[in-house]
Amino acid sequence: MPASIGPELQRLIDLLAKMPGLGPRSAKRAALYLLKKREQVMEPLAFALDDAAKNVKTCAICGNWDSIDPCAICRDETRDPSVLCVVQDVGDLWALERAGVHKGRYHVLGGLLSPLDGVGPDELKIGALIERAQGPGVNEIIVALPSTVDGQTTAHYLTEHLERAQVSVTRLSQGVPVGGELDYLDEGTLAAAMKARRSF
Amino acid sequence: MPASIGPELQRLIDLLAKMPGLGPRSAKRAALYLLKKREQVMEPLAFALDDAAKNVKTCAICGNWDSIDPCAICRDETRDPSVLCVVQDVGDLWALERAGVHKGRYHVLGGLLSPLDGVGPDELKIGALIERAQGPGVNEIIVALPSTVDGQTTAHYLTEHLERAQVSVTRLSQGVPVGGELDYLDEGTLAAAMKARRSF
Repeated sequence: MPASIGPELQRLIDLLAKMPGLGPRSAKRAALYLLKKREQVMEPLAFALDDAAKNVKTCAICGNWDSIDPCAICRDETRDPSVLCVVQDVGDLWALERAGVHKGRYHVLGGLLSPLDGVGPDELKIGALIERAQGPGVNEIIVALPSTVDGQTTAHYLTEHLERAQVSVTRLSQGVPVGGELDYLDEGTLAAAMKARRSF
Repeated sequence: MPASIGPELQRLIDLLAKMPGLGPRSAKRAALYLLKKREQVMEPLAFALDDAAKNVKTCAICGNWDSIDPCAICRDETRDPSVLCVVQDVGDLWALERAGVHKGRYHVLGGLLSPLDGVGPDELKIGALIERAQGPGVNEIIVALPSTVDGQTTAHYLTEHLERAQVSVTRLSQGVPVGGELDYLDEGTLAAAMKARRSF
């Protein structure tokens, strides 16, 4: 790095470059942009980061992130408490909320089982899920985990351990994405779509 | 936006999405990443933004950004004060410093002449450049402006107005970029490279 960039600026660029989606060059561009918009963006962003770092907490019930605990979803009386949707992390919860397709509550596992990376059941909120599933008023657990090896291993583990609880365990369907061209799909997806075919 | 994202988080995501290189989705991903790394990245970034917003100033001599004024480049006695390199903005100064190809001082114009956008000579630091050029000890002005219409218009304007000062005015050469395939170059660049051809 050239000595012509002062230490404050260099520290800012180095931190910006750690964010996903920004590399060393785009971090410099972002720093220049922010310095041009000090009052409109840079100072509010500094405040928002500090504010969120201090005030956003993990919901003790479902594991979602919110400034209140329990989170707004767990407090929302209009949402169906009998259906729990199990997701890997808060990003997936946001994706489902953006689509507006789940009207029940959530349970954020905090990751996936991955023996190779040393992630076992105790590292995830699996015990808490089984406890919630056994509680009164829960009828269905929707396992909305990614369609990867770790995701499916975790889903399988959950299904086995949820047998004791008197709930139905379901999973998202697999198949052709809406708007997807068959030509661009992998063999696994095509096989799954063919196997799970439905009559018109 | 779904109501499931709390107001602190939503404000953070909205501000992150304003940065160049981040859109609404990648801003969410960045927010999730930052919340996972609160102590290592999020809080230091909040501090660095606030610190830079408060302490980075414009060098009164050359227009560079630094925490000291005059900036580190203008203070550096080992740099040649007789050669001034004129750049559009601080990003271009950083690019030249990264390449390590200029051992003199700089002059940051703060933009380019653009009659359509209402940017005239008074909006840029052109008067200050002419004053510096007329001062003692300045022998050469290197005009390192972009090879665009506005860049060349500005370069032409500078050349005309620097005639009174007893300095040689030079510009960066145009031609084939190092490592560039001829096949992918535009006609204008090829024509310039052909016209400015040199003997081996």
